[in-house]
Amino acid sequence: MITLYDMPLSGNCHKVRLLLSLLELPYQIQAVDLRGGEQRSPDYLQRNPFGQVPVLDDDGLIIRDSQAILVYLAKRYGGETWWPDDAYPLAQIASWLSTAANEVANGPAKLRVHLKFGSPIDTAVAGQTADKVLGIIDRHLQSRDWLVGDSISIADIAVYPYLALAPEGGIVIGAYANIVAWFQRIRAVPGYVTMPGMWQA
Amino acid sequence: MITLYDMPLSGNCHKVRLLLSLLELPYQIQAVDLRGGEQRSPDYLQRNPFGQVPVLDDDGLIIRDSQAILVYLAKRYGGETWWPDDAYPLAQIASWLSTAANEVANGPAKLRVHLKFGSPIDTAVAGQTADKVLGIIDRHLQSRDWLVGDSISIADIAVYPYLALAPEGGIVIGAYANIVAWFQRIRAVPGYVTMPGMWQA
Repeated sequence: MITLYDMPLSGNCHKVRLLLSLLELPYQIQAVDLRGGEQRSPDYLQRNPFGQVPVLDDDGLIIRDSQAILVYLAKRYGGETWWPDDAYPLAQIASWLSTAANEVANGPAKLRVHLKFGSPIDTAVAGQTADKVLGIIDRHLQSRDWLVGDSISIADIAVYPYLALAPEGGIVIGAYANIVAWFQRIRAVPGYVTMPGMWQA
Repeated sequence: MITLYDMPLSGNCHKVRLLLSLLELPYQIQAVDLRGGEQRSPDYLQRNPFGQVPVLDDDGLIIRDSQAILVYLAKRYGGETWWPDDAYPLAQIASWLSTAANEVANGPAKLRVHLKFGSPIDTAVAGQTADKVLGIIDRHLQSRDWLVGDSISIADIAVYPYLALAPEGGIVIGAYANIVAWFQRIRAVPGYVTMPGMWQA
């Protein structure tokens, strides 16, 4: 059985919920009480020493980090549609997983956590990071339907939630027409699930 | 022919130089003049819209991002030693690639670029990020020789350079005994190459 250690308002958790749904994999949710500090309990730190959600437990195999969980699910359950066998598309996917782990996390995601939950951040730096990465992604999608290749991949799933949640960080995401068109393509994929706060047309 | 768009003092470039050397792959260096702003030229931005080094060009296949380049080289040239076929070790490797892209980049690497090149940063935030990630890695290595599995992987190579360069950011890396022991194991791997500024016993 797959268990997802989850927090409903986390975009990182949503990456995993989205892929689990697209792959039609049954799973159970284990809610983590972040306000109560459960993520810093010895029990939880055993699963993830970084004290973050999500964590996936697949019959005792424990995986931390949303990008790594996408890799695991794609490789184990997704077939070649979700996990190409060639080095070049894999590397392109990996480059966007890095972007999700760094620029997306430190730009739009940080602005949101600041506005929504009051976390102290350097808003100027996060704003610059957001502007840069959103501009790059919008230009990248000018001539492409998906971040890598001809169909949705875990690159799209890793980058999508915090871009769709960007309005909660004060970003006018509607100004990025190619990103918005890509949102619509993602939302049309069978099995798509949303979460509260995501941009609506 | 493999071409590495490189800057000698970049730890991100060193990840790639190290793996190329361990794999005994011939390659040529194309130095990028970061001080002169070459990374912002239209020509370079075509290769990497983020305007960063390294970039790899393998007979016309262009890959940006140091973690993605490690994935590419491991998968294409490394055999199963460097690119396991099972989902679980792959996911564990991916989790450390995220750590390299985020916490290592925003902790020890940022402190170094600040002290060495004068980049303005929030030193308190970078210091906290560095303390946390170094503590986690040191405890992780308490009972293990390598970050993932029983031999060196691209997880080690992605995390290593900015930890070995941490003294240039004012970090007393010698205080982390398990990390230092891991440094020694990495340095004993046939084909190991170093770069200026790395911690010495």
